Amino acid sequence: MTGIDRIIENALAEDIHTGDITTLAVVRTDREARAILKAKEEMVLAGIQVAARVFRLLDERIVFTPCFGDGDRLVAGDLIAELSGNASSLLQGERVALNLLQRMCGIATLTSRYVEEVRGTGARLVDTRKTTPGLRVLEKYAVRIGGGINHRTGLYDGVLIKENHIAAAGGIAEAVQRARSYIPHTLKIEIETETLDQVAEALAAGADIIMLDNMEPAAMAEAVALIDGKALVEASGGVNLATVREIAETGVDIISVGALTHSARAMDISMLLEGC
Amino acid sequence: MTGIDRIIENALAEDIHTGDITTLAVVRTDREARAILKAKEEMVLAGIQVAARVFRLLDERIVFTPCFGDGDRLVAGDLIAELSGNASSLLQGERVALNLLQRMCGIATLTSRYVEEVRGTGARLVDTRKTTPGLRVLEKYAVRIGGGINHRTGLYDGVLIKENHIAAAGGIAEAVQRARSYIPHTLKIEIETETLDQVAEALAAGADIIMLDNMEPAAMAEAVALIDGKALVEASGGVNLATVREIAETGVDIISVGALTHSARAMDISMLLEGC
Amino acid sequence: MTGIDRIIENALAEDIHTGDITTLAVVRTDREARAILKAKEEMVLAGIQVAARVFRLLDERIVFTPCFGDGDRLVAGDLIAELSGNASSLLQGERVALNLLQRMCGIATLTSRYVEEVRGTGARLVDTRKTTPGLRVLEKYAVRIGGGINHRTGLYDGVLIKENHIAAAGGIAEAVQRARSYIPHTLKIEIETETLDQVAEALAAGADIIMLDNMEPAAMAEAVALIDGKALVEASGGVNLATVREIAETGVDIISVGALTHSARAMDISMLLEGC
Amino acid sequence: MTGIDRIIENALAEDIHTGDITTLAVVRTDREARAILKAKEEMVLAGIQVAARVFRLLDERIVFTPCFGDGDRLVAGDLIAELSGNASSLLQGERVALNLLQRMCGIATLTSRYVEEVRGTGARLVDTRKTTPGLRVLEKYAVRIGGGINHRTGLYDGVLIKENHIAAAGGIAEAVQRARSYIPHTLKIEIETETLDQVAEALAAGADIIMLDNMEPAAMAEAVALIDGKALVEASGGVNLATVREIAETGVDIISVGALTHSARAMDISMLLEGC
Amino acid sequence: MTGIDRIIENALAEDIHTGDITTLAVVRTDREARAILKAKEEMVLAGIQVAARVFRLLDERIVFTPCFGDGDRLVAGDLIAELSGNASSLLQGERVALNLLQRMCGIATLTSRYVEEVRGTGARLVDTRKTTPGLRVLEKYAVRIGGGINHRTGLYDGVLIKENHIAAAGGIAEAVQRARSYIPHTLKIEIETETLDQVAEALAAGADIIMLDNMEPAAMAEAVALIDGKALVEASGGVNLATVREIAETGVDIISVGALTHSARAMDISMLLEGC
Amino acid sequence: MTGIDRIIENALAEDIHTGDITTLAVVRTDREARAILKAKEEMVLAGIQVAARVFRLLDERIVFTPCFGDGDRLVAGDLIAELSGNASSLLQGERVALNLLQRMCGIATLTSRYVEEVRGTGARLVDTRKTTPGLRVLEKYAVRIGGGINHRTGLYDGVLIKENHIAAAGGIAEAVQRARSYIPHTLKIEIETETLDQVAEALAAGADIIMLDNMEPAAMAEAVALIDGKALVEASGGVNLATVREIAETGVDIISVGALTHSARAMDISMLLEGC
Repeated sequence: MTGIDRIIENALAEDIHTGDITTLAVVRTDREARAILKAKEEMVLAGIQVAARVFRLLDERIVFTPCFGDGDRLVAGDLIAELSGNASSLLQGERVALNLLQRMCGIATLTSRYVEEVRGTGARLVDTRKTTPGLRVLEKYAVRIGGGINHRTGLYDGVLIKENHIAAAGGIAEAVQRARSYIPHTLKIEIETETLDQVAEALAAGADIIMLDNMEPAAMAEAVALIDGKALVEASGGVNLATVREIAETGVDIISVGALTHSARAMDISMLLEGC
Repeated sequence: MTGIDRIIENALAEDIHTGDITTLAVVRTDREARAILKAKEEMVLAGIQVAARVFRLLDERIVFTPCFGDGDRLVAGDLIAELSGNASSLLQGERVALNLLQRMCGIATLTSRYVEEVRGTGARLVDTRKTTPGLRVLEKYAVRIGGGINHRTGLYDGVLIKENHIAAAGGIAEAVQRARSYIPHTLKIEIETETLDQVAEALAAGADIIMLDNMEPAAMAEAVALIDGKALVEASGGVNLATVREIAETGVDIISVGALTHSARAMDISMLLEGC
Repeated sequence: MTGIDRIIENALAEDIHTGDITTLAVVRTDREARAILKAKEEMVLAGIQVAARVFRLLDERIVFTPCFGDGDRLVAGDLIAELSGNASSLLQGERVALNLLQRMCGIATLTSRYVEEVRGTGARLVDTRKTTPGLRVLEKYAVRIGGGINHRTGLYDGVLIKENHIAAAGGIAEAVQRARSYIPHTLKIEIETETLDQVAEALAAGADIIMLDNMEPAAMAEAVALIDGKALVEASGGVNLATVREIAETGVDIISVGALTHSARAMDISMLLEGC
Repeated sequence: MTGIDRIIENALAEDIHTGDITTLAVVRTDREARAILKAKEEMVLAGIQVAARVFRLLDERIVFTPCFGDGDRLVAGDLIAELSGNASSLLQGERVALNLLQRMCGIATLTSRYVEEVRGTGARLVDTRKTTPGLRVLEKYAVRIGGGINHRTGLYDGVLIKENHIAAAGGIAEAVQRARSYIPHTLKIEIETETLDQVAEALAAGADIIMLDNMEPAAMAEAVALIDGKALVEASGGVNLATVREIAETGVDIISVGALTHSARAMDISMLLEGC
Repeated sequence: MTGIDRIIENALAEDIHTGDITTLAVVRTDREARAILKAKEEMVLAGIQVAARVFRLLDERIVFTPCFGDGDRLVAGDLIAELSGNASSLLQGERVALNLLQRMCGIATLTSRYVEEVRGTGARLVDTRKTTPGLRVLEKYAVRIGGGINHRTGLYDGVLIKENHIAAAGGIAEAVQRARSYIPHTLKIEIETETLDQVAEALAAGADIIMLDNMEPAAMAEAVALIDGKALVEASGGVNLATVREIAETGVDIISVGALTHSARAMDISMLLEGC
Repeated sequence: MTGIDRIIENALAEDIHTGDITTLAVVRTDREARAILKAKEEMVLAGIQVAARVFRLLDERIVFTPCFGDGDRLVAGDLIAELSGNASSLLQGERVALNLLQRMCGIATLTSRYVEEVRGTGARLVDTRKTTPGLRVLEKYAVRIGGGINHRTGLYDGVLIKENHIAAAGGIAEAVQRARSYIPHTLKIEIETETLDQVAEALAAGADIIMLDNMEPAAMAEAVALIDGKALVEASGGVNLATVREIAETGVDIISVGALTHSARAMDISMLLEGC
């Protein structure tokens, strides 16, 4: 959990820095309080352990009792967790915990809507690298909680040969061959295509995954037929809730959606204190 | 610029880690290329120096030539910047630069719409602490570029006495007095109120800023009259583009809007490479 | 407490680095001992939790029992704290704990003498940014324990417009106006003045705090009369124990003293071990 | 220089953090200025490269021209250095540069007074571990500039067997033997003694350096005679400017003085800007 | 290059810490010198840019001129690089540069011997995770320079289902299925097998790579025939220079060898200075 | 233990980074298991607390029970330690714990062979700075466990005047004198010599330790006679198990061997899990 601890400690330092002067001035240091986290709209819960960890790193004596687990579907009014402990610590952790939790629930909830939309087709939803700088590991986790799967984590653990790479290599076949001789044998090679000719070329070059970038559904269906199970097929580009079903029905295996992390709205969650 | 450098280096490490294996495998290390950043919709530009810094930290030989400055209003198709240098470096910096720039432009653009909405009233727009963990300094900068001003940066550089603090202190007067005797004399004291009675109490206690939390516009106007210039008045809670004008017309000095940083949509910007 | 932990860990690493070779060579690793911290002169105690934290971070099994709390006035011979635990850990933490504690007690003690000096006047003592690089948060804490209050923590959480800023802005009025439109509404604006004319100008410009820099007491009294409660008045420059009373009696609200952190002598405290 | 860079960057972050809001608000970012550093009392200069490095790390375009070098003796009014460059950068670096430089000059100046005091005797002045946490490397450097030499840097690069170690080992002979078999053969073994009997024991045990702790001058002279060149002799404890000469004349080789780093007063140096 | 910079800076700090006291004491700070790096035995060069970077990070004015590039085969007496610049910097960087370069050359050289051994078969050599803690990225790079390819970088960028995972999952089929539904679609699934029955099971489960762990060559050949191109085949366990050819001739695609990083002997390289 | 913790955390981050995807996918997070560490050849154990710390830092609930202590001599089949706890944690820590432990045991074992070889002579074995970058503190510890002693830790805690330093200083006498006036009085001065003339010069200059670099045994014996106890004598250069006895018998005090850390083979240790 150390990468996540670093995110949280960074966020706490950003917010608290040399001290929460309001609380230091006004609240007695030995005051105890209770608090609750409450959902104010329907959502898929994601990040409950991250919220708990915020308070744990701030003050190891705070007791954080979750009422739901990640992946649970909540309705407005649901009690998410109960907290008790030092009042000053609860006040200091509130904003960071909510900023993280609301964002993660937003991503999981949006992902679950896309997943719902393609139910019954064979297509699976995946995320992209269009994540918030510094928070990728949390955002990709939230996508999984929402029912999606993850694309590569970064530039280091997956090969995606794009238009510029192809141009630099002097062609699709050359690019795939260079990649094959360089990368770990444990990684697949994905290549971006924009036309059926490129699809055919990628297939001939032995690509493991063929991305159909910004193609029309009809062209996608043709590409799927052409590829015929010899490579995984990923649809990409301009996917939204209105279009995702039609794309899924073309028979693609994978649909990547930048919006899952890029445009997810934060869910409305509040923290209420009593006794302080 | 060191705080910002740390954000960028963290983001680059997150994305590149042990290496961009696609580029390492496929692109010759001495290949040169040119690239452009292009606006694909109307927006207020914010973060151009941050985008430039991403490439600078990655490869100090890249030449980044901005065509516009922060605060400029762009239309779809505007060329934002031109880049030239090592093709591999351009490919590796693209996603991090865009992830940061698109977010900052989104915040500046949204802020400018709120500012436009209250034009002619005396009200000023301010942000909140509902920012992305780790990116607060960039997001608050973008708010300023969009025409807003900043609320406190964190818990350490401003006093905001909320309901729980008042309860803990045993009343508004007591809370203000404790804060006054503790904090630097260079900071004002702000207090959150929900009723006109609390407004009167806060005024009597000598608060410098009185926040009207989730009040109806009519009550706000009454509060403004009651306060009568003896303290700054800040409206807060549930402000959106539909309601902000009415709130501004009540005569409040300041309107704080979580949505500026919390719900801003990333602007559509693309990076196009040639010659690689 | 994370900023303070970083100071302590840094200090321990500086002193111990790859290991206390004397202790490693000579003392059996399972040897237990007791120790006491003892005041060897009169002082105001400050930093007892910091001293405790040094040993805690070094070895969580050490039991540190304070006999006094911060702010308590000690006389020579007073037992400050009792410690027990692993002898090697006690030996390794001694110097760092004393280096920090002696310095903090020195600052609190000196501050308390200044505070005593102005008792009965309305003036309050504040510190400056003339602190030891890296230890500001501890030194400002010690000033508060000694009865002073803090000026801004750094350049980021307070506005102080000095001569050079005024020159750069083209005048006092212009400088104050620029600051007002830029900074968070939660911060006051302070301006440095050297003559009564500048005081009048600063007042007209709406400064919240007017610093009287290196003025004679008579001029200070005039300035106080001129300002007449419309701004806070801060005396600064060349203040010492011999002059502070006279300055306080001019009616200024605040007196800032670099010497509180800059020239405080370390208090004499010793650590005695038995049983090792 | 990386350890020193870390000290400086830490100090700059402590002071500037998210930004110098006064300068950002008031001073145009392209304004240029000149500045001078000026001695306001007699002193030995130490740390001129550290001051230069502060500005260099803040803004690599600032030109810093030293007029003197470390070790030079200055009188009041001497121009220490000239600076030119961006006005905002000069304003932001001023306090950190002065806080470091004034402290280092203070230590070098005080050391030089002790050195002067023992001139003509064979005794050399050394520092202790009673340094400011986090600044040891700079303070020990300043001692060398003032004409002193350094004791061990920390617990890791020198052996000093004190009373508690002797007790733990079960005697001087045992302690020295354990150390000899554990430590690198490149290090000497020093042992603290309080009586002539202990001196004799230490000598018999083969100690390389014998510390005379808090002995009277007469006893020191006896110890020197007893040791007779078979070990280095170090005087320690309660040394001050009034007593150091008498101690030196007992024939000891080394005199360690905590006050060199512990009680040195910061020298008075000012930075004056023009043109901003 | 930031991960590698961190390794180098860490190594320099480890060796130099507060300063190279011999050089500081003995060598004038403005003395210039020249130096050469020289091969003292036959080897494959790897890490020349790392050696250059050591001196660059220490002192950016040192000129480092490589005479060969990574992958070149050297004989005893070959001049690897010429350096010129500040004598103190050259002396301080020598050991760290050699410690890194000698190790990397050792790994590349050993890898090239294995590669030579299997020439003409279809088998490729890969490394393992048995690398030096903290240096994995450099060691895996050296394997590639020696003609090998890399297995996964760590636990995060490749799936290798071992005996314990199979037991935990309740069988091979279940383990593969769980992995397939969890991991990015860009990663292959590898599974460790010890018997032909397990090979058949892994094949049926759809494993992308089947590892034959510690099998006899005859069994390996049978496994290769059974798998018949439907998955990649990796031989693992107890491979050495005496056995690798026979293993390669069984028809496996990949042979993983812990010894490449685990047992490579450092190559003999010396650095000679003149003029200092 | 903080330096060691940093090594371990760095190693864990290197291997696990964003997560052990195989284990996350396949093993239930609440599964418990037992494991053993087992010696597969004869060795001197070193690093058992380091191995324990790996698991402790990963998961504080793992119970690690050592069966032997550092310095114990093991035979093939000996059970080194028993572990129990969360199966996922055991799987994740295995490789890092073994990579460190196997290396440390290798160094201790090799050192003990050298020590054995010189038994009965007065010579002691010491290491060099030819250690693995980043792991020096662990490797020097392992040398001590194997019965060796440590040379200086780095360039900062010992003086070793080599040929280049002598040339730069203008002679042996000058170099020793410069060092004596600069370094802490707690450090000895060592000087490298290649001829008997240089030995005589070094002796005359007052060197504390004289290194005989790459001399023939006969010349060494002459040097020992010449020095006659007035300085420590260290043999260095090309020492191996075949030559070390003859060198020891020349009467030198110290023999430094780069191979102790440079060429030690990792010991064969395996970790076996059950119940997962």
